[in-house]
Formats: sequence, structure tokens, C-alpha cells
Amino acid sequence: MTYCVGILVREGLVMIADTRTNAGIDNIAVFRKLKIISQTGQRVLAIATSGNLSVSQSVLSLLAEGLENPETGELDTLENQPTMFKAAQLIGRAVREVWRLDGASLEQMTARFDVQLLFAGQVAGGRLRMFMIYAAGNFIEVTPDTPYFQIGEHKYGKPILDRAVTYDTDLYDALKIGLISMDSTMRSNLGVGPPIDVLVLRKDALTPELEYRIEPNEPYFLDLRARWSQALRTAHMDIPRPPYGQNVPGDI
Amino acid sequence: MTYCVGILVREGLVMIADTRTNAGIDNIAVFRKLKIISQTGQRVLAIATSGNLSVSQSVLSLLAEGLENPETGELDTLENQPTMFKAAQLIGRAVREVWRLDGASLEQMTARFDVQLLFAGQVAGGRLRMFMIYAAGNFIEVTPDTPYFQIGEHKYGKPILDRAVTYDTDLYDALKIGLISMDSTMRSNLGVGPPIDVLVLRKDALTPELEYRIEPNEPYFLDLRARWSQALRTAHMDIPRPPYGQNVPGDI
Repeated sequence: MTYCVGILVREGLVMIADTRTNAGIDNIAVFRKLKIISQTGQRVLAIATSGNLSVSQSVLSLLAEGLENPETGELDTLENQPTMFKAAQLIGRAVREVWRLDGASLEQMTARFDVQLLFAGQVAGGRLRMFMIYAAGNFIEVTPDTPYFQIGEHKYGKPILDRAVTYDTDLYDALKIGLISMDSTMRSNLGVGPPIDVLVLRKDALTPELEYRIEPNEPYFLDLRARWSQALRTAHMDIPRPPYGQNVPGDI
Repeated sequence: MTYCVGILVREGLVMIADTRTNAGIDNIAVFRKLKIISQTGQRVLAIATSGNLSVSQSVLSLLAEGLENPETGELDTLENQPTMFKAAQLIGRAVREVWRLDGASLEQMTARFDVQLLFAGQVAGGRLRMFMIYAAGNFIEVTPDTPYFQIGEHKYGKPILDRAVTYDTDLYDALKIGLISMDSTMRSNLGVGPPIDVLVLRKDALTPELEYRIEPNEPYFLDLRARWSQALRTAHMDIPRPPYGQNVPGDI
């Protein structure tokens, strides 16, 4: 399983990815799912992947080698695409190419061609953008109304995002809320686990402000987990008990 | 979609069920999913259902008519089973009987034989028990370690249960936490919706303490929803921002 979340706020963007992969619950390993391409002053691109690991790794390998441009014969890479939109299209082409190579065989073995990617960043001259790319190579883009995307095990970590993140959220509050969302997911699904990879990219900086790996026993993250658990436990205590027919014994 | 949760604490049990059904997102209706059988002083049984509505309704209809006992030739009903365990087995038999009648045809039409039930209550002379019954007619029972079961859309409402409910939770706090869990689910999945049916059964009372339908604009539930949203929004504010490399502009 996997959980990755990307949040795009006015000040910048945050990408957070777990690193746990599993082939069955008895075969668990650590694989980095957050890839960052950084050319200071030119472009910073981040790709988070979920789904079948062989598919997502093949997509990234194809992108690293470059895909031949059918018109010019040149190699298209993420490093030479002129805009975020063109870069997202290139990732979509790479997904379709892996489908062409592996899709039929995977389905023959009743494995699904399962891949989903978050793609975010900024190319000099363009704006900060974030896309979610599907297994068909099509994609959607984040807008200020719902300024986040999730891939993988998204349900446990969604309620906090729905309620706490807006486009005007402070960049490091967005990181904090994203980490709470990751914590909720790890707490309820053992297939999602540490270490956690994090990227913070400030608007127009064109260089990562933070590239960080949160290790399992990192003090801040442990503290966040404990405080959030405590907050959830106590939050309901401030809500009155239901007034419905309380025949409390001794209270007749 | 459906969401039902049952919580069994030391003092008693709570069952909560939504009432929304949908055949596609453009065909939504209200169906009661919480059935209560009450013979004061003798037994109180509650069944909450999820899955294919035709299957769960057939299961309940079969149980109402009774299933012939292969040994005695008598009709077995939920009203005449001597223990909760025997009653759970009877429900399992009814599920298997509907599978025998409808399973093959459903699968031919690529519809799944999809049904899951929560079954809880007390029979005089026995203890309060709660079971989750699967489509194969097998079942598991709640224990104090994890004193709740969920069926249907369970993920959104699980984090609060995981953190706030223990076997020693007050009975009406359990109801309140169950309603928060229902609220989280309704907020994130439109397939789960009001009115909400509620049962509170106190241990050894052998009569329902509360049977109640929460209508969409009921003031207490509206207040709970608003307070919980507010609590989630503010809870994260008490957690410090991540200390990782904060190159805040102007702070160099």
C-alpha cells in the first residue's frame, strides 16, 4: 500500500510520501516513492507514485531515458519540457508506453495495471502546478477550491484535509496538516509506513526549501502523533452527550 | 453505500445506521437498515445490514418467515433461538440460503453477492454480545480489545473509534463517538446520509433504552457536526509547526 499527499497553497507546495511497499502482508520493504528533479533557478519537479511498483518504476525509468518525440525525433525528458503541462503530458505518455509493454501480460496474470502519480512543481516562467495522473495517462490539476490531491490509501487521512486545508493555509501549516493526514493513515493501515519523505517548495523559489526524510523515531513526528491522538481523544469530550432519552439509573 | 457501527462497552451497546441507499449516484433513496426485535424481559436483538439491498432484505425476510430446522422440522426464528450464538448461526444460515437462491444469478449479471451484517443484543440468561456476519455466513464476535465493528464505508469513521473508544467508555459517550464517526463518514462519502437510526441497549435491561431516528436537521446532531469540524480545525493549531529547515523569508 502507499499514501502520498500533495498540497498546493498560495505560498507554495508540499509533497509527502510514505515508503512502505508490500507484496502480501508478509513481504514488506522500503522503497522511495517521492522523486525530485531539481535544476536550481530553472525547474523543480516532484513525482510521487502509487500502485504496482513495477509499473511506477518502469514509468520513472522510461522518463529518465527519455521518450522519442514523434515529430522531431529528439528525446523528450522531464528536464527539457518547456511547461508543467507539457511535462505532465510526457508522464502520461510514459504511463501509456508501460501499458503498451506490460498491460496485457499483467492482466493475463490477473494483476491490475495499477498506477497513479502526483506530479507537482514549477518551471521558470510558469506557475506552480500540481497534477494527478491516472493509469490511462490522463490527468487532472489541483485548483484553489480543493488544494490537495491524494494517491493510494486516501480515506483515513482525508477528513483532516477536508476540514483544515485551504488555499490560504500557511505553507508549514500545510506540511503539518499533511503529516497529520499521514499519521491517521499509518495508524489505520499497516501497509503505509515510515520513513516519510517530504518536499516543501516555495512559489517562485525554483529550488527546494526542504527535502527531508522523517525517520521512524524522529522526535517531532513522534510528538505530532502523540499530540494528535490526544487532541482527537479530548476533542469529543467538549461535545455534550446526546440528549436522547437518557434514563440514567438513579436519575428517574 | 452504507455506514453502520456497533459499539459494545461494559455498560451496554450502541448501534448506529444510516439510511441512504443508491443504485448509481443518480438513484438515491431512504431505507431503514437497522432492525430491532424486542421482547421485553426476554430478548433484544438488533441487526444492521450493508451490501446489496436485495440480498439483505431477502435475509431479513427469510428470518422473519423462519428457516426449517433440519433435525426437528420446526421453524427456527430469531425469536426462538436460545442464545445469541445460535441466533448468529441462524442469520448465517439465512445468508447461505439467499446465496443458494440468488448467488449464481447475481454473479451472472456481474453483480456481487455482497452482504455484511452487524448482529447484537442479549437473550435472557446470556450476556450482551455483538457479531459481524459475512457473506459466507461465517461470523466474528467483538471482544474488549476492540469493542466495535463497522460495516459498509468504514474508513473515514475509523480513526476516531480507534482513538476514543475503549470497553470502559461511558455508554452515552460511546453513542456520541459513534455519531462523530458517522458524521466523518457522511462528510466524505455522499452515499452515506441521514436520517440516522440509533439503538442504545443497556446491559441486562432486556428492553431498549433508546430507539431513535435522528432527522437531517436535528439540532443536537447539527451542533455535534459543527463542534467536531471546529475541533478538528483547531486541534492541529495546538501542534507546533514542523521544525524542519524553515528558511522563512526575512528570517535569515
